[in-house]
Amino acid sequence: MTLLPTLGPPPPVLPIALQGVRVLVFDIFGTVVDWRGSLVREGLALQQRLGLAADWPALADAWRAGYRPAMARVARGEQPWATIDQLHRQILDGLLPQFGLAGLPEAELDQLNRAWHRLAPWPDSVAGLARLRTRYVTSTLSNGNMALLVNLSKQAGLPWDCVLSAELIGRYKPDLAVYTGAARLLGWAPEQLMLVAAHPSDLAAAQLAGLRTAYIPRPAECGPGGPMEAVGDTVFDTVAADLGELATQLGIA
Amino acid sequence: MTLLPTLGPPPPVLPIALQGVRVLVFDIFGTVVDWRGSLVREGLALQQRLGLAADWPALADAWRAGYRPAMARVARGEQPWATIDQLHRQILDGLLPQFGLAGLPEAELDQLNRAWHRLAPWPDSVAGLARLRTRYVTSTLSNGNMALLVNLSKQAGLPWDCVLSAELIGRYKPDLAVYTGAARLLGWAPEQLMLVAAHPSDLAAAQLAGLRTAYIPRPAECGPGGPMEAVGDTVFDTVAADLGELATQLGIA
Repeated sequence: MTLLPTLGPPPPVLPIALQGVRVLVFDIFGTVVDWRGSLVREGLALQQRLGLAADWPALADAWRAGYRPAMARVARGEQPWATIDQLHRQILDGLLPQFGLAGLPEAELDQLNRAWHRLAPWPDSVAGLARLRTRYVTSTLSNGNMALLVNLSKQAGLPWDCVLSAELIGRYKPDLAVYTGAARLLGWAPEQLMLVAAHPSDLAAAQLAGLRTAYIPRPAECGPGGPMEAVGDTVFDTVAADLGELATQLGIA
Repeated sequence: MTLLPTLGPPPPVLPIALQGVRVLVFDIFGTVVDWRGSLVREGLALQQRLGLAADWPALADAWRAGYRPAMARVARGEQPWATIDQLHRQILDGLLPQFGLAGLPEAELDQLNRAWHRLAPWPDSVAGLARLRTRYVTSTLSNGNMALLVNLSKQAGLPWDCVLSAELIGRYKPDLAVYTGAARLLGWAPEQLMLVAAHPSDLAAAQLAGLRTAYIPRPAECGPGGPMEAVGDTVFDTVAADLGELATQLGIA
């Protein structure tokens, strides 16, 4: 008598658009890590250590709100190339007076600016990425600079095959050169890459550049009841609630 | 009665030059992977599959011998920037007639050229790198292009915090810009990086660029009794027989 192995459910048949995907590239801020919750925790720790008080959720929101305008100034050539570390510090310096933090010593400001190197992952990120990496080449594809991404990934235990940053291309997302540059560096055609991101505008640009797209809504990104970027009329190749569900959708046990 | 914990030997006191090191960057071909043994195995497998014969050790040696001259042509501006994949293919194409391989179909040649994406690690590499990564930021710093390094690392299970290539700088080692560029991208001063390499010329250039240096002699790199690059008069910050011994020297259990 032949003993048949126990059979699990058959692997899903992937939609044709996803069958050729070999590489998953990930947006980081908001998609893989919780920047707002992490910044608030860093602020509260600073507050306790130095005996000061500030509205840390409001500071986190204002800091992040300065991010796209700062990159846009670089993209328009109004400011020479600057890393996200430098742009974050520029934005922070502008916010210090209104948050009562103008008296912080330089070493504390530098440490606070580097809170972006210590952002914590969403609860599903580490395990989800580890599963996805068993089947795909995985890489960051973030506007964060290399030093920030490497430090953040090491601290959070994010398992990547590669760390790629817009810094390597010298343009910021959503410039299409960032997406096509990642494909070129990794040695695949754009349609063999899929961008995994929580922001429809990032995904729409990746799609224009020829990449496949996976939308991971992160309703908690901007805090309880906070805003989410409108989806618009982009049709994504797939949508998943988190990185674990994405792995399951892609047939990874 | 107080129970004392069992005490192991005290951790070594690192030489002052090494105390400030935060990042280890690694040469790859010959230092972390055995290019010659891997190419010979690939050749023998091809031989068996296609029923042909060639002197694979001699081909491996000739292929590698073309590597530095090819990069030097790019450095002198005699040839526009080309990746190592492209240079490897150029060299291979030139060697095919003398090794009786001129008739190989294009798909086989492409596959053979990509043998460099599948090089096997030395026996100590994976475990040694894993130990070193517990204490240091670790990265490749190779002339191999990003696609090659990412594929090779994934296949061999090499654990990195980051994959960096000369391709990102647009110059080849031993151009000092490659070493200082790696420090800049990772956000550290040159003297906070240590290059780990099997080739004294690579280490000498890194030292000129301000990096610390760890020499890992790999007497088997060019085959049994094969040549090793002369050490010259460079004084390295440390010398270790393999990556495990380097970890032990650096006080990592």
